[in-house]
Amino acid sequence: MNNSVKFLPYNTIVKVDDNASLIRAAMEAGIHINASCGGTGVCGKCRVLIEQGKVEGGISEQLSQEDQEKGYRLACLSKVTSDLVVRIPVESEIDTSRLNVHAGSRHTAKVMYSNIDELRQDGLFIPPVEKIYLELDPATAEDNQADVTRIINHLLFKHDEHRLTMNLDLIRKVPDIIRQGDFKVTATIMRPVREDGKNEIVNIEPFDTSNRNFAIAVDIGTTTVFGQVLDLQTGEILSEHGEFNSQISYGEDIISRIIFAEKDDGLEILHQKVIEIINEIIEKIIKKAKIGRHEVTTITLAGNSTMTQLLLKINPSYIRRDPYVPASIMYPPFHASDIGIALADHTIALIYPGVSSYVGGDIVAGIMASGMYRSHELTLYMDIGTNAEIAIGHKDWMVCTAASAGPAFEGGGVKFGMRATKGAIEDFSINPFTYEPMIITVGDKKAKGICGSGMITITAKLLETGVIDSRGKFNQSLDTPRIRKTDDIWEYVIVYKENTQIDRDIAITEPDLDNLIRAKGAMYSAALTLLEEIGLKINDIERIILAGGFGSYIDLESAITIGLLPEIDPEKVTYLGNGSLLGCKINSLTNALRRDVGKVVNMMTNFEMASTPSYMDHYMGALFLPHTELNYFPKVKARLEKLRK
Amino acid sequence: MNNSVKFLPYNTIVKVDDNASLIRAAMEAGIHINASCGGTGVCGKCRVLIEQGKVEGGISEQLSQEDQEKGYRLACLSKVTSDLVVRIPVESEIDTSRLNVHAGSRHTAKVMYSNIDELRQDGLFIPPVEKIYLELDPATAEDNQADVTRIINHLLFKHDEHRLTMNLDLIRKVPDIIRQGDFKVTATIMRPVREDGKNEIVNIEPFDTSNRNFAIAVDIGTTTVFGQVLDLQTGEILSEHGEFNSQISYGEDIISRIIFAEKDDGLEILHQKVIEIINEIIEKIIKKAKIGRHEVTTITLAGNSTMTQLLLKINPSYIRRDPYVPASIMYPPFHASDIGIALADHTIALIYPGVSSYVGGDIVAGIMASGMYRSHELTLYMDIGTNAEIAIGHKDWMVCTAASAGPAFEGGGVKFGMRATKGAIEDFSINPFTYEPMIITVGDKKAKGICGSGMITITAKLLETGVIDSRGKFNQSLDTPRIRKTDDIWEYVIVYKENTQIDRDIAITEPDLDNLIRAKGAMYSAALTLLEEIGLKINDIERIILAGGFGSYIDLESAITIGLLPEIDPEKVTYLGNGSLLGCKINSLTNALRRDVGKVVNMMTNFEMASTPSYMDHYMGALFLPHTELNYFPKVKARLEKLRK
Repeated sequence: MNNSVKFLPYNTIVKVDDNASLIRAAMEAGIHINASCGGTGVCGKCRVLIEQGKVEGGISEQLSQEDQEKGYRLACLSKVTSDLVVRIPVESEIDTSRLNVHAGSRHTAKVMYSNIDELRQDGLFIPPVEKIYLELDPATAEDNQADVTRIINHLLFKHDEHRLTMNLDLIRKVPDIIRQGDFKVTATIMRPVREDGKNEIVNIEPFDTSNRNFAIAVDIGTTTVFGQVLDLQTGEILSEHGEFNSQISYGEDIISRIIFAEKDDGLEILHQKVIEIINEIIEKIIKKAKIGRHEVTTITLAGNSTMTQLLLKINPSYIRRDPYVPASIMYPPFHASDIGIALADHTIALIYPGVSSYVGGDIVAGIMASGMYRSHELTLYMDIGTNAEIAIGHKDWMVCTAASAGPAFEGGGVKFGMRATKGAIEDFSINPFTYEPMIITVGDKKAKGICGSGMITITAKLLETGVIDSRGKFNQSLDTPRIRKTDDIWEYVIVYKENTQIDRDIAITEPDLDNLIRAKGAMYSAALTLLEEIGLKINDIERIILAGGFGSYIDLESAITIGLLPEIDPEKVTYLGNGSLLGCKINSLTNALRRDVGKVVNMMTNFEMASTPSYMDHYMGALFLPHTELNYFPKVKARLEKLRK
Repeated sequence: MNNSVKFLPYNTIVKVDDNASLIRAAMEAGIHINASCGGTGVCGKCRVLIEQGKVEGGISEQLSQEDQEKGYRLACLSKVTSDLVVRIPVESEIDTSRLNVHAGSRHTAKVMYSNIDELRQDGLFIPPVEKIYLELDPATAEDNQADVTRIINHLLFKHDEHRLTMNLDLIRKVPDIIRQGDFKVTATIMRPVREDGKNEIVNIEPFDTSNRNFAIAVDIGTTTVFGQVLDLQTGEILSEHGEFNSQISYGEDIISRIIFAEKDDGLEILHQKVIEIINEIIEKIIKKAKIGRHEVTTITLAGNSTMTQLLLKINPSYIRRDPYVPASIMYPPFHASDIGIALADHTIALIYPGVSSYVGGDIVAGIMASGMYRSHELTLYMDIGTNAEIAIGHKDWMVCTAASAGPAFEGGGVKFGMRATKGAIEDFSINPFTYEPMIITVGDKKAKGICGSGMITITAKLLETGVIDSRGKFNQSLDTPRIRKTDDIWEYVIVYKENTQIDRDIAITEPDLDNLIRAKGAMYSAALTLLEEIGLKINDIERIILAGGFGSYIDLESAITIGLLPEIDPEKVTYLGNGSLLGCKINSLTNALRRDVGKVVNMMTNFEMASTPSYMDHYMGALFLPHTELNYFPKVKARLEKLRK
């Protein structure tokens, strides 16, 4: 944040990084500049006057020679390289009358970092799998105990390791390995979750390999699968990679995958697909990390209950049928190769336990990663996605539920919805008089569609400017060609086709808004219901933790404005990132977490919204922007009133 | 033992069963009758006069009409059906002068029976695998806990079962099975060896199957493999069957099998062969027992260390190489199907632990079955075979070793050696004046060869009558054509070819006797060395337990006469039968034994004879009949002196 940019006539100052584009700086500051082409300089609308300081670039054929000489630049092409004073041309006096009521500056959630050094300081950095180098006494006529006995006795007497076991596959290898290493070997030991459990010797290698101990963490999302390689000596992430879950071609959401799994070979196919993707990711990340497959000692995997059961090839049929029963919530450790994961025979797979059919291992992993189960503050944990998972609680108790939000936030059920890849409209502002938009796309490319965080902001801005009402219906009386009826459906055109990559106008439609409202309504009302069931109110929440793919991009003000998040100081909102992956990572690094996870799972009370009578009432009330009950959102209410007066 | 038979002129009375042949009655009584044809009536030598009572049969064309009318019968064809007085025709006065010095009556070891009722009384009849019928509460909207959780909680709260685990394969089946049985299921639980271990739920079946719980016990011998089906409700043996170990075609003994296993694919081939034989046996015994494969909950297998490693596909190479190291002495329980055993996926395989490369699970099983580890009496346990295993001790300590006896007792290295199948000479007597033999064959068929117990008796009788000396060399000066030199080798003809099935004279040769002396010398000197190493003497032994295929047929007097067994009251010798199989059976019936077996294995001190210096001296001393040191055998010494005076 080296440079300060002052926008005139608003007198708003933001701090931005070197080389940030001026249009992003404006969006950050809550300043509207008409802009349609996604930052490619072709629409020529984002003309600004550089009054002090210098920018890099900013010139295109859309700017006349004269304007250039006066100091005009296109904001989308200008890179900030020094402190600046920038004037936004105002088209009418009305514009300036709203100087002090423009939207507050953009707030995204603080990112929560997990700190390995902290784990180390707390004595918690004890990976569940440890390597110990052993210099055994060679066998002699006087001491010809069995090879396995020799190893176990050495560990017992020289390293104080007790309750050791070894499985048959490893016993098979021991005689040759022990001699290959001339009685110098490295033992890999898997620690039990319970302190009185067995320590399993999972591998024996010749010579000293104790400094080569790696783990893989995998989050199996319904949509995407992510993997990381971790160095268990340092706790560092050595590489990571994500791919779409190729089960998608058999069904976009959980229910359609379960239905597919119920067909002949369906379960086998979905199982194979996810294993293939995991193996592709492993291939890439171990190559990037420059490690050998056999050096990976554990792989921790988390997913929702359906993803977990498909991974493990367990019929998920009863998850979708009343009364929604998963096969199991805990799974024993097993050898990764047993389910076809392309790692060595000795690599142990650890599956994150879940709570119920719709609160799976992914959310438990996130909760473990967030540390909320150790906190005193009443925390709302929300994993935003097609299947939104919500947990509320602190160190003494925890309740959780899942809300079927639908795919609106992930680009589904939205006419021009897409995932947050290049060309997706991710940020948006609207001129409250002309209703001309300002857009920012991922990668500053011409627009292709709208991603989840874009949808939230667009909806909030349309609401604030009165383009839509609290039911998500367009104000048909506004004087702008952007609000129009196509094929009998009302819509607002965000980008005209000449400025898109798709040669079609990109618009947001009433059905899109309907889907979005249902999605946010499902999540908010689930949180409200949970709170009510335990006798608390929405404003008792002291902290919000967001997880999920796009949580870091969400403009918190917008999310509150549409009623997705309860009204809270944005400072109290933290973004965890991929909570599931982070939970897997921490699980790989510390056995302490593995011990806690059972406690947390047992502590968590699950509510099925479908069988909680008050849920439907809350849901109906939440099908408004922000909510029927505006008293839940006093600040939003005040702001909307001020903006529209 | 319904009938009493009095033999004249010896005035010896024996009790025999109905339908016993007269020649077997005579052998039992220690009465010699010349007999060569194995009981088929063709040699006509065994003419006896029935003076009182009646026999069935006994008539052949070898008897003249006149003799028949006088009451002469052929002993081998006569069946005892009433009390009898039988006169043996004596060919000379000399015969009668020996009336009171003929060999004592035949003594075989008492058979030790394992008593299930006793186990039950002692509270020890607790099979390691139990079935429990569960009537679960069906899942409802209010109680939709995971299926596995429902089962575990029911077992915990209704049956006080703790520390329960379930593996992934079973978890996969649970959701469908639980509904198939309409929430009525039977859980199969494997008990841990340690009381604080985990109880593994190994199977869940729909409805109540708790009364169908079976085990299989398998002894994997180098030569033969035996299997039994046991009913775990009653403890009864439902069926049993044995087959030759088909590994034999890759090597008769352990060493040659290990050498084969060292070749490419050798280990895989030997592993497959033993698995095939086990599967053949299982096929037969479950059919005979009329049970389903899936009803077998455990299979316990015992074998020597090499057989165990070949079964488990573990390179046995280091077993035969100095310093003779086995891979492991304990093996964890695993799923029988994991190594290709054709039982259900849930069937648990338990492998008997061993002590060393040459004291394997078979002898540990036998020791467990014998109960000697619970006894106060100093016991010598001897498993006679190619690899003779010996243990000495009682409840406080135990030492063990293995002696490489060579295959003489199993028919190997003996010119006409054979296993104890039909036509094998199993018993023998010799006229001390004419040197004419009396033979009894297995199945009363014409002779084909000599089995192990036959070799022992033949050697003892030849020694007693001075046909051979204490070094096993023939007295070439005796006046009988049966002692002769063929191809430069001295031999005694037991049966001339016209009375054999093989159209060759069956003889015992000096090299045969050499091999037998080495075999018995190895065993006796191993026992002697063990005793000396712990500061005891041979006559401290209070009890002998014999195990192995042919232990019940051995004439104990003969075994003592040749110096195979120490001199002891034959009443103190017990025959255990197939100790390994019996140990497996008891292991299937009681968990208590499984707990003890670890203790016994840890308590047992193994001595390698090759690295015990005194062994070679003892072995050299034992290469005499009965021994160089005749003071070890005072009674044999006295008897030999009396017989030869």
